[in-house]
Formats: sequence, structure tokens, C-alpha cells
Amino acid sequence: MIDRYSRSEMRAVWSDENRFTLYLAVELAALRAQARRRGVPKAEVERFAKAAARFSVARIRAREKVLAHEMEAFIEEVLAQGRRCPRAARLFHFGMTSFDAQDTAMGLQLKAAAALLEAGWQRVLAAEAALAKRHAGTWMAGRSHGIHAEPITFGFKVAGWYAEGARNLARLRRAAKDAAYGKISGAVGNFSTLEPAVEAEALRALGLGIEPASTQVIPRDRHADFIAVLAMSAAAIERVALEVRHLQRTEVGELSEPFGRGQKGSSAMPHKKNPVLSENLCGLARLVRHHAGAAFENIALWNERDISHSSVERVALIDSCILVDFMLHRLAGMLEGLQVYPERMQRNLELTGGGVFSGKVLLALIEAGLDRVSAYAIVQRCAFAARERGEPLQEALAADAEARKALGARGLKACFELAPYGRHVPAILRRAGIR
Amino acid sequence: MIDRYSRSEMRAVWSDENRFTLYLAVELAALRAQARRRGVPKAEVERFAKAAARFSVARIRAREKVLAHEMEAFIEEVLAQGRRCPRAARLFHFGMTSFDAQDTAMGLQLKAAAALLEAGWQRVLAAEAALAKRHAGTWMAGRSHGIHAEPITFGFKVAGWYAEGARNLARLRRAAKDAAYGKISGAVGNFSTLEPAVEAEALRALGLGIEPASTQVIPRDRHADFIAVLAMSAAAIERVALEVRHLQRTEVGELSEPFGRGQKGSSAMPHKKNPVLSENLCGLARLVRHHAGAAFENIALWNERDISHSSVERVALIDSCILVDFMLHRLAGMLEGLQVYPERMQRNLELTGGGVFSGKVLLALIEAGLDRVSAYAIVQRCAFAARERGEPLQEALAADAEARKALGARGLKACFELAPYGRHVPAILRRAGIR
Amino acid sequence: MIDRYSRSEMRAVWSDENRFTLYLAVELAALRAQARRRGVPKAEVERFAKAAARFSVARIRAREKVLAHEMEAFIEEVLAQGRRCPRAARLFHFGMTSFDAQDTAMGLQLKAAAALLEAGWQRVLAAEAALAKRHAGTWMAGRSHGIHAEPITFGFKVAGWYAEGARNLARLRRAAKDAAYGKISGAVGNFSTLEPAVEAEALRALGLGIEPASTQVIPRDRHADFIAVLAMSAAAIERVALEVRHLQRTEVGELSEPFGRGQKGSSAMPHKKNPVLSENLCGLARLVRHHAGAAFENIALWNERDISHSSVERVALIDSCILVDFMLHRLAGMLEGLQVYPERMQRNLELTGGGVFSGKVLLALIEAGLDRVSAYAIVQRCAFAARERGEPLQEALAADAEARKALGARGLKACFELAPYGRHVPAILRRAGIR
Amino acid sequence: MIDRYSRSEMRAVWSDENRFTLYLAVELAALRAQARRRGVPKAEVERFAKAAARFSVARIRAREKVLAHEMEAFIEEVLAQGRRCPRAARLFHFGMTSFDAQDTAMGLQLKAAAALLEAGWQRVLAAEAALAKRHAGTWMAGRSHGIHAEPITFGFKVAGWYAEGARNLARLRRAAKDAAYGKISGAVGNFSTLEPAVEAEALRALGLGIEPASTQVIPRDRHADFIAVLAMSAAAIERVALEVRHLQRTEVGELSEPFGRGQKGSSAMPHKKNPVLSENLCGLARLVRHHAGAAFENIALWNERDISHSSVERVALIDSCILVDFMLHRLAGMLEGLQVYPERMQRNLELTGGGVFSGKVLLALIEAGLDRVSAYAIVQRCAFAARERGEPLQEALAADAEARKALGARGLKACFELAPYGRHVPAILRRAGIR
Repeated sequence: MIDRYSRSEMRAVWSDENRFTLYLAVELAALRAQARRRGVPKAEVERFAKAAARFSVARIRAREKVLAHEMEAFIEEVLAQGRRCPRAARLFHFGMTSFDAQDTAMGLQLKAAAALLEAGWQRVLAAEAALAKRHAGTWMAGRSHGIHAEPITFGFKVAGWYAEGARNLARLRRAAKDAAYGKISGAVGNFSTLEPAVEAEALRALGLGIEPASTQVIPRDRHADFIAVLAMSAAAIERVALEVRHLQRTEVGELSEPFGRGQKGSSAMPHKKNPVLSENLCGLARLVRHHAGAAFENIALWNERDISHSSVERVALIDSCILVDFMLHRLAGMLEGLQVYPERMQRNLELTGGGVFSGKVLLALIEAGLDRVSAYAIVQRCAFAARERGEPLQEALAADAEARKALGARGLKACFELAPYGRHVPAILRRAGIR
Repeated sequence: MIDRYSRSEMRAVWSDENRFTLYLAVELAALRAQARRRGVPKAEVERFAKAAARFSVARIRAREKVLAHEMEAFIEEVLAQGRRCPRAARLFHFGMTSFDAQDTAMGLQLKAAAALLEAGWQRVLAAEAALAKRHAGTWMAGRSHGIHAEPITFGFKVAGWYAEGARNLARLRRAAKDAAYGKISGAVGNFSTLEPAVEAEALRALGLGIEPASTQVIPRDRHADFIAVLAMSAAAIERVALEVRHLQRTEVGELSEPFGRGQKGSSAMPHKKNPVLSENLCGLARLVRHHAGAAFENIALWNERDISHSSVERVALIDSCILVDFMLHRLAGMLEGLQVYPERMQRNLELTGGGVFSGKVLLALIEAGLDRVSAYAIVQRCAFAARERGEPLQEALAADAEARKALGARGLKACFELAPYGRHVPAILRRAGIR
Repeated sequence: MIDRYSRSEMRAVWSDENRFTLYLAVELAALRAQARRRGVPKAEVERFAKAAARFSVARIRAREKVLAHEMEAFIEEVLAQGRRCPRAARLFHFGMTSFDAQDTAMGLQLKAAAALLEAGWQRVLAAEAALAKRHAGTWMAGRSHGIHAEPITFGFKVAGWYAEGARNLARLRRAAKDAAYGKISGAVGNFSTLEPAVEAEALRALGLGIEPASTQVIPRDRHADFIAVLAMSAAAIERVALEVRHLQRTEVGELSEPFGRGQKGSSAMPHKKNPVLSENLCGLARLVRHHAGAAFENIALWNERDISHSSVERVALIDSCILVDFMLHRLAGMLEGLQVYPERMQRNLELTGGGVFSGKVLLALIEAGLDRVSAYAIVQRCAFAARERGEPLQEALAADAEARKALGARGLKACFELAPYGRHVPAILRRAGIR
Repeated sequence: MIDRYSRSEMRAVWSDENRFTLYLAVELAALRAQARRRGVPKAEVERFAKAAARFSVARIRAREKVLAHEMEAFIEEVLAQGRRCPRAARLFHFGMTSFDAQDTAMGLQLKAAAALLEAGWQRVLAAEAALAKRHAGTWMAGRSHGIHAEPITFGFKVAGWYAEGARNLARLRRAAKDAAYGKISGAVGNFSTLEPAVEAEALRALGLGIEPASTQVIPRDRHADFIAVLAMSAAAIERVALEVRHLQRTEVGELSEPFGRGQKGSSAMPHKKNPVLSENLCGLARLVRHHAGAAFENIALWNERDISHSSVERVALIDSCILVDFMLHRLAGMLEGLQVYPERMQRNLELTGGGVFSGKVLLALIEAGLDRVSAYAIVQRCAFAARERGEPLQEALAADAEARKALGARGLKACFELAPYGRHVPAILRRAGIR
């Protein structure tokens, strides 16, 4: 992924340096489990471990040019470092296949990536909880189809974001658990040399689950699951970003993204403040969801594995982690500095001349004894008339003989009060998990 | 979905009849909860319910032509049926929005669909468990990159399918639980008329979870999650189907799909038996995974909802359920009648002239004191030579001074035994969950 | 595809009846070419053709149940009809493989589908051209990032839709030409029995191109290309639909979809007019673009063909044709009845208090001799100040010493004229191809 | 894209350095067209151009940190360089918006990228033409469904790849032409300041087409079209790679990828030669096709543009170019060094004991006077019997009374000759475009 959309913390998880370091950690965990069984002294093993840690990525790259096989290059480099501990060296990678190290290391990387992503979601959730509480009583128009529907509060809207975010955090935790697996079962997964007990001991030491029936690799449904969850996280972010873009529209003007001092909005039009962060987040969500599509194609490998999935993961899996990590922090920063304009929300809420209360009128008419079909006809008639004449719905209804008769002045007035639309907001915030 | 890829049980879940029946169930659940609160006698409510059940899909369709709104047509039809119970009728759909009924009904449909899909997976798992046990000791070549790697047994291979299937069954159960949600919270989700308690009572009666912070609809991440899980199920099926296609190849000939009496394989070539079921399953998996992509796009709706997701769900969500249901039963039938050719497996295993044991030789040389790099060079040299001369690897090694010296005749022979490759198969089957 | 999103004309192209009719057309074209070479009298051939035309889909389906092979069932049914013309019958399907008929018939179907789609685009283009001309002078705000940018006219906006539509019509014509190919080259494409000359004669008679190097099938890149083009058509439709949704927003109110008499917008809120057609079109575009993804997966078949593509095409290819055909006519109908509100457009254009002219002011300052950076700073400063004080930009500039000095009252006023923004609209319409 | 899958030539096209260089080229083209109209001396313009070329990416990056707007940073940097030519400087970016420069520069980048991709395809086509000619007479089994069908030659197979490659080269040329467009039409595309004639002159100088109806940007269907074409190129590459993987299988052994001296195939199994290049190509094709999916989502922008497409293009568009460029050269190298094993092909062709000739027998029986259904039954019966008894089909037929009677010994023998399967290969190569 390009630097522009990366945070260094997540990049580090997927760096070559870290990857080789984790290969070594896996190899050493297996080596220790084997050494104990084969009577190689612990002291020599640890001397070997210390020497091995002096491997150099540059030298690995140089060897790889000859061998055309990165893992063999890594092994030769480590063995060169640890040549003074021959008994330990002999057990290094012994009975293992490349992907015993690689896939198990990837399990560790996914675990680390998930921890960063969880932290990102928590930052977002904290920002959303604060917004929801601060604006639990800030009135605005609820909209469906882009058309004003009924009054809501901004805090209520944010509670919806929060609840979806919390679901995504839970999904991420689950998928991370399901992806934090390793395998040290040999070239086709049947432990032709090593024992399941060695695998168990090594993976326990590494903090990973044991793949029950691996092939040469961990089955790729685990990775697809993880990326699919990232795609849902990305879409949850997109949902918020899309809302900000809508509410920052010139005609709406209810929100705006933070705008830095000295920042320029447009090279041609100096008056503009554009929701560029949100637009960016919407674009990035597209990338992540299509990476999930590629990950689904990686599941059905040939026989005991083919390596077609590898290039996809080098790009789509890693980039999805990097992107969602970046997106979460961009979103969090945006929400932390979000500018909210309650007066404008109020003003917009009045745009329909009371149309947003039409549902209440409908129900009041029914409660007053009209049947549903007649009631609906009355309200729709008055609503369209009011819109045409540019007068408030309440007046149009007051002028309508049927409506007036059914509701009376007081009954009619009661339909146009905001309070009922906010009654349950505190309960909804609680249900969403906001304390 | 076309009939060719549908089973009637799953079609029934998504039929118009069932959908309206479930709308009615939801409406009545809400009506009962309201009636109790507003003192409408239970007897009248149940009379209304009985009358309402006489709704006709044909009449709904006729009304819809005028109203251009299916839910209003449904409501008018039900009210026409229940007009003799005016107090109950007045509470019908009272304070509700279309999607209170529709999305809650969809929660019920997803629950029913998931039950069918679970049964499908269980049939597949039963067939796989039987195969795995029957062939736990049936030797064959393990392959990576399409190239023979080390010996395995066919039962071991199937255990991998089983474990992935079991994961998918678990995923399905989880996603079904997360999708079996309802909402009766009004036009924008803020309970402008009804109480959360009414929603809670109705959803409890329907056996659904309560969406904590709905808008006009249930948030679409729940549905995307469900389809993503179906895409993973489809890919797990594809993995098995792809393997059958590979192993049925003329040159491999280790498996074949059941082939009906009187069936024709090819209109031009009467000798052929083609793995058409498996090929079909691979194609269908493509459809499902791309439906998941569309579902991800449905998450970010505008404001308190837009209806762009609806057409996608009418096709992609329903079809994904129908397809995976169909695929599971096609796969199960295929596995139940699968023809396995152990002699051919054995014969193929010998194709490399013992090359499949080269890993063992490598390790034996290391154990005999050679360093890893030298050992690798010896085995690769002998393996390539043997292949060129068309002689068994064991002979090439026996003729190699270094190898012979390091291993001795007995040591060399021990490298070419099958038993070690099958030692842990029973344990792996157990780990995979096969009893 | 479900009926709701289908037009009968396009359904007919893909019906079983039509498919078998086209199979027969292809078979007869090949038969005629062979008969001439082998001396079978033309009269018998035509008698056979007449008899064959009496095939019944029901009888084919009955036979298929036994043979598990639709094409064989078709052949047996035709031969049963034509049994009185044995010499012609003997040449029926002679030397051909199923897909000689099937893929060639699909070439004819794609050609027919493309003709319908072209007609759909032409209806859309006609509606757009009319709108563009009618509103070439209807002022409104041009927006970027959802923020008012500079004045445009509605006709100018529509010209952009038109130009993209015209590109899609051209794409469709090209892709249709590239997809209208056939092959009659036998089981693996090498003319093991028939001559290339027979293929050439038959395909010429059918009006199809000759696939230069077929396998058992026409290579699937042709079909992928066709669906990719449909995905772009769908996205072009989505672009227009998305715009209508934006401009129908309550706060914008510049357009609205046609709204039928008696139609209900919302079951809960009688005042609403929702852009449901446009929302629907946006959803359907998602389906089509993901079908294109599945089509790309169909290209890499095994060896001289595997049949995994077939199920994908039965759904994704056919549905994409049906959907885009439906979408084009839904869009056309929507545009033909589109309600345009020029006063509201004008009112919205004034919302920024002249901010939409800020670009002009910037350039005027530069022309007056200021450097770009200083000029930008002046305009941004005045624009933000004006917004804060709620005063017109022109006043803020008039009150700014630097600006006033640079431009003078007349110069300043000239910056706030609409005419320059419309000068080139007629030329743009012409460039877009609108006459 | 990671270095591993990049060639430096294509990277250079998309480098920051090149991008700013092209921005400058576009700005200068516009400046020259304006300068001529406004009487700024050519000499000053060219002095400015020379000074401007001394811009530094590092300084742009530094300014960008403050302005949070890359294009403004670029403009300020260029103006700083060219401050000694004030009359020219005043016309720099005059009346333009950022994307007048950016999108037009991208048109130039796409043109340059397409030229590299064309060269890649030409290298692949040359390798394929050579293979096809060399092996026009190399017999092998043609396969459908993975099952032997009828004899073909390897050169015939390659001709199919060639024809698809040639189609992709043509597609690329067309899409490149359709993407090599620019626009210099201002902030919303209506030439509020500049004249269409300035745009025309500048674009002509740059060698780009004129977008007839732009908004702030070039419409994104052009870019989607380009990526869709890349996805088809990637799939065409995948088709070849998939074939190599199949034919390199241990049981097939008809091809192998080039294998470097000193290369290691597997860290655990020294005997292996894995088709890793082909597997890699199959994985990369997945990435590209899903990028096309993201590009389709970029088409429907808001109003006169939103910037959500930008992040997608920075990744998906650029990476698709880099990946396909890399893939073409990897494929070409692989084909140039491909190892072909004609003896193995011949041996495999005999695996079905003559079953591959069953189609000929079927037709011979029909020609001998049997009806199609009876003839099919005879051949299928003998074929399945022969397979069961492990005897050649020819013998089984000779032993079948009906078959023997119909064909006679000579007639039967004639069915089992290879020559007819190769007769038309030279013609097919010619049709495919191979000279």
C-alpha cells in the first residue's frame, strides 16, 4: 500500500524484518520442542537462538537471488549465523516445510494486526459515544430516501453508527481468534516427520491455535473470513463518511469536517470547504471490499495446496489490514474534530413546513376513528396541497374540514410536537452500548 | 434463481406467499402487544387474525398496480379481510412503517433459510465423515503445486474437507443468529409512536433478537455478514469439487463422480465420463462470492435509509441462499456416490519412482550428521538424475557414494516406507471432529 | 431474473423455446452446408427442416430426465421428428459437438440481446437530448464534493450524461460485434470431421463471425467483454440515477421523479415523494457490476474447455442482459417524466451569497496584477468572513481594501455575472453529439 | 504495488516525479495557448517553462504539509521558480482547476502505460507464435472436462492462446485510445474562464483527445473501461498459466516451466519442480479482476464530481497497470523457456486405449447407415467395456458383432488414425494470425 494510506504501526507488522523475525520465532519454538525430545541441551539451543537473531535481511535477499526461494535463503542465513551450535542447527527447520514457518508466522501477524485494528475501532467508538451523548438532544430531520421523514436527534443517528461499530469490533475479535492459528505438520500436513505433540507445544508457546486438519498450509477460509470482516469494517466506516458528505452538502450544511488553518479547499474556488476526508474513506472502502472478493477465490486450492493464494495475500490481505487501520484513525480524527451546526439542523427540520409530522397526524386520525385508508388520503391530500401553496401542513389540515372535525385544534396541535420523537433516545443509546 | 439450481424447500422460504404470511405474523405480533396495552379484547384480536389469514396474494398484486406500493396493498387487503373487527383493525400496522414488517419478516426468513442450510451442511459432513473413515488407510500421493509431494491417505484428505465444512457450519450458525433480528421502531427507528416495550414483546414472540439502534431498517451489515458466510460455504464446496475434478482427470483417474445409467457424457465422444457436477459447483461458487461483493455495497445507506439495497437483496441475498442450499445437496449426493479407485491411487503414488520419499532422505542425511545444505544438494542431485534416467530414487541414492556412506543400505531402505506417513491420521481425524 | 426486473422482449431472447429454436437454426445451417457437399437433395433437407421445427420443449425435457444431457435429448427429439428423411437425418449434428450448436446459438442470442439494448440506449439518449436542449439555459449550481462550485445549466449537466450514454452505446455495438461469433469446429476445435469451409458457410448464413481458434467452445473473453460493457452501461445509468436522488433531496428539491396518481410514497408518512426508481437503478447497477466479476473468472478454462462457466452464464450473463434492458427503459421512462424546478435551482444557486463566483474574483485579482498566492488569500479570507457574517461575498469584497483597490466597483460587479458560465453550453451540447 | 510484482519501466510512469513533470507539461501547454491569445511574448513563456522545470518534489511535499492540497503546493512551487517571468506566471494555471492538470496528465500516463503494455503483449505473442509453429505437429490429447477427448497438436493449443492474446492487444489499443483524453474546461467543465479553443490547442499539442462533456473531471467510464480491459488481459494470461500448471502435473508431465540452475523447488522435498511462475500469475489475475470491480464503482460520482474515485485510482488503476505489465513479461519469459515433452504427450495420448477416437467411430457407424442413437449406444458400450477390461477400444469394437458388421476391419482401422485431427492445424494457425 502507498504511504499516503498507511500508518507506520501497521506497516511494521507486515515488514520483511518483522516477518523474518517471526519466522525465526516459529522455527525456534519448534526447535525447542524437538530439542527437549532429542536431548539437545537447552543451553546450546539458546546460544543458537541468540546467534540466529543476528540474521540479516540484506544477506537473505542476496542468497534468494541465487536460490529463487526465499525460505531456503532464510534457512541458509540462519544456519550460517548459528553454525557454532551444530546440534541445535541440525534440528533447525528439521522435518518442517516452508509454510510451517510462514503460515504460523502469518498467524502471529494477523494477531498483531487485529490488535491494532481493535485499538482503532476503540478510538472510533469513543469518539462516537462522545458525539452521541453530547447531541442526544440536538434535533434534526430524520430522512429516508433522502427525503425528510420524521424528527430525530443527531445523538440518535450517531448511536446507530456506534452499534454497527461495536458489532464490527466484536466481528474483528472473533475473526482474529479464528485466524490466529498455526500449523507445524510438514509438507502435506500429515506429520510425516514431526509429532503432533511438537506442533502443540510450539504453538502453545507462540499463543496460537492448532489447525486441526492442515495441508501444506492453513486452509484459506480463515484468511478469507478475516478479510471479509475487514470489508464490513470498511463499509461501516463508509456509512459514517457517506453521512458526513451528505450533511456537509451546501444545501444541508449540518456538519463539516475539521478544516485545518491554512488549508486550501480548491485551487480554483477559494470559498470551498470540501469533505475530502469522508470522500477518501468512501473510496478506500471500495478497495477493501474487492480485496475480500479476491480472498474468496483463494479458498479452493489444488490438492494439498497450490501457491496461487500467496501473491493475492501479499497484496490484498496486507493492504486490507493497512487500509482499514488507516481508515479507522482517519475516521476517528474526523469525528473528534467534527463541526456540528445545531441551528442549521433546526432550520432544515422546518423545511417541510411540518410535513415531518404527517405520520403523527395519520395515526391521530385513525385513533380518532377514521379508517386507515381514509386517514391516509386526508393527510396526503393536505400535505401535497400545503407543499404546492407553500404553507405549513398544520394550516392546511386546519383548513381541511374532515381533519379539523376529527382532531380538533388541540388534537391537531399535539401532532406537531417534537418531544415524542426524542422520548426513547436515552434508552436507544443504552441499548447501543453507550454509557 | 432458475429452477435448475433451486430446491423447492428453499424456494418456499422466499416465496411471495411465505413472505406475506410472515408480514402478517409480524403485524399480528405487534398488534397483540399493542392491543393488550390499549384494552382491545383478545378475542377480537384473534378473530381479526383469523380473518386476516384469508388474504390473497392475487388481490394484493391487483391493488399494488394502482398504489405502486406493495406494503400499502398488503395492508389494504388485510384490512378488507378484517373489517368486521374494527378495534383490532385500527391497531393494525398502527405506528409502524413498512419495514417494521418487512425487515422483521426477513429476519424470520433468514432464520428459516439458515435451518435448511445447516441441514445441508450436516448431510455433507456425514458423507465426508463416512469417506474419511472408510479411506483412512487408502494410500495416495499428497500433492503440492500439482506435483507429488509425500504420501497421504485419502481419508486424511477428506478430513481437511470435513474440518473446513465444520467451520462453515459454525459460521453459518453464528451468522444466522446475528441475522435473526427484527425491528419495530417506526419510520426512522426512534419509536416516535410505539414503545420499545411493544417491539420487545413482539420480537420475543417471534423468536428474534432486537436491533439495538435501527433506522427505518435493520442495518445491512447483518445481511452482508450472512452472504459473506454463504460465499465461504460456497468456496468450501468449490474446494471439494475442484479436488474431484483434478482426481477424475484421465491421467489421474483416482476418483469419479457417480454416473447414472443411460447417462451420456458427450454428444460427440461416447467414451467420456465428465465431472460435470463438480464443474457446476465450481461455477456456482463464483456467483455466490460475487453476490457477497454486492452485499458489501449495501451497507452504507443514506441517512436513516435509502432503498437501493432492496433490489440487490431480492436477487443476491435470496439467490445466494438458494444456490448454497442447492450446492450442498448436490455435493452431498456426489460424495455419497463417489467412486474411489484405490489401486489407481497406489499406482500413481509410485509414479515418481520414490521421489515422494525424498524429504525423508533429506532428514535422514541430516540426522546422519550432514549439514542441511549439503544434504539438500545430494538429494536434489539424485532426484533429478533418477528422473532423467527413469530409475527409482532409491537406486540413484544407493549409487551415490556420499548418500550410501551416510545412510547405509538399511538406513536408506527405511526412508522409503509408507507407514510413517499414516501414523497420525487417526489423530487428525479426531482433531477434525470425525468420530 | 425475477419478473419484477424483466421485460418480456428480453426474456424471450433467453427463453428455452428460443434457445432450442436457435440450436435448430445452427444445426440446419451446418446440415445444409454438409448436404450440398455430400449430395443429399435440397428438397429432402428442407422437408427435414420443416419436420424438425415441430420439436417440443416438453418432450426434450422428458428425454433429458433419462439422458441427463440436454443436447442429446434435443438431438433425439429432432431426429424423431425428422425420421422420414433419413439421408438428411444422418447428417444432422454429424461431426458436431454440443457446443457447436450451443455456443453458436448463444452468439445469435447475444446479437439479439444487443439489438434490444441498443434500442434501450437510444430511447434514453433521446430523452436526454430533449432535456439537454430544453434546459440548456436553466441555471443551477454546479457542485463538486457536494459543495457549490460554479454556476452551470441543467442542460449542460445532462449533456454529460448524454455523452457517456453515447459512449456506452458505441461500446455496446462494438462488444456485440465481438460477441456475435460462432464455431462449428468439433469436440476440441480442430475440425476432426467437418471442414472449416462448412463452418464458414454455416456461420455466414447465420450472420455470425468465425472464431479463428476455438476449443470445444468460443473463448470466454468474448462473453466477459460483453458483460463488462453491460456493467459500464449499468454504471452510466447509476450516475444519472444518483444525480436524481441527490437533486430530489428535501433540501435541494430541484428535480423529482414522475409520481403516479394514487401512488403512495410511504406507508407511515403520507407527505413523502421518494426517488424510488432511481434508488432501484442504483441497486441494480451493483448486481450487474458483480456479474462482470464472475464473468472474468470464466475466462481461464481447463485445456480445451471445462464447463464451469456454463452455470455462471445461465445466471450472470442472461441476468445482466435482462437487468440492463430493464434499467434502460426504467431510466428512459423516468427521464421522460422528470419534473424540473428551475425556480428552486435558481434559489439554491444563491445559497452561497455569491460564493459560486469566487473563482472569477480570484482570476480578476490576478489579472489586475496580484500574484496568485495573495489573490487566493484575499478571496478565501473574504469568503470565509462573508459566510460567518451571513453576508454576500460581493459585499465582503467591497469592504476589503485590497480587493476594492484591485478591482474597483465595476470590476467587482463583473465577477458576479452569470452569462460567462453559459457561453459555451451550446458548443458543449454539440460536442456531446446533441443536435 | 510491492516491488516484487513491478517492473521499473511501469513504475516510472506512475512515479511522483513523472506525475509532476506531466502536470507541468499540461500547464505549459495551456499557458502557451493562452499566452498567444493575450500577447505574452513567446520568449518569456519559454523562459518561464525552463525555470519551472526546476521544480522539486521535495519542496512540493514540504508545502503540501501546510496547505493540505498537493496541487496548490505544486503551483506555488512552480510560481516560485518562475517568479522572474511575471507575465507568463500570471497565466500559469489561469482559469484552470486542479483536475484540468491532473486528469489531463493521467491521460498522458495512461497512454504511456498502454505503450508498455502493448510491448508486453507483443513479446508474449512472439513467444506464442514461435511455440505454435514449432509444435504444429506435436501430438497430444485434447481434453474437455479434464478428460481426454480427441487428439490435437500442441501448436493448435497455443494458437488458441495466441488468438486470445491478439484480441487483448486490440482491446488494449482501443481502450488506450479511449483513455488518452484530456480536459481543460475549468472547475465544473463549462469553460467559465477559458475557451474551448484553448483546450483544443493544448490537448492537440499533448496528443490527447478532447473530452466532449467533462465535469470537473474526465468521466470515469473511460478509466473503468481501461481497467476492465486489463482484467481481460490478466485472465488471458491466467488461461495460459492454468494450462501450464495442469500440463506440469506429475501425472501429466507434458510441460514444465523453466527451472534455473541452483534453484530450489521445495524446502522439504528436494525432488520437486513446481510451476510457481504460473501459480503466481493465476493469483495476480485475481487481484486485477477485482480492481476492475472497484473501478466500476468509481463511475457514478456526485454532481459535477466527488473525489471518492481518487484513492481507488491511486491504488487500483496504477496497480493494475503495474501488475499486468509484470505478468506479461513473466509469462513471456516463461513461454520463451518452456520445456515441452513430446514423448510424454504421445504416451498420454494413448492412455485411453484409443478412446480418443470414439467420436470418429460414432460417425463412421452413422455413415455406414446406423441411426445416431444406436450408433452412440454401440460406441459407449464398447468404450466402457474396454475401459473395464483394460483393452484397447479398437479391439472391443472388433469383438462387437454389430460394430464389426457395420464397419469392417478396414473401416474400423481408419477410425484410429491421427492424421485427420491435424489436417486443418496450419489453416487454424493462419486464421489465428500466426505467420
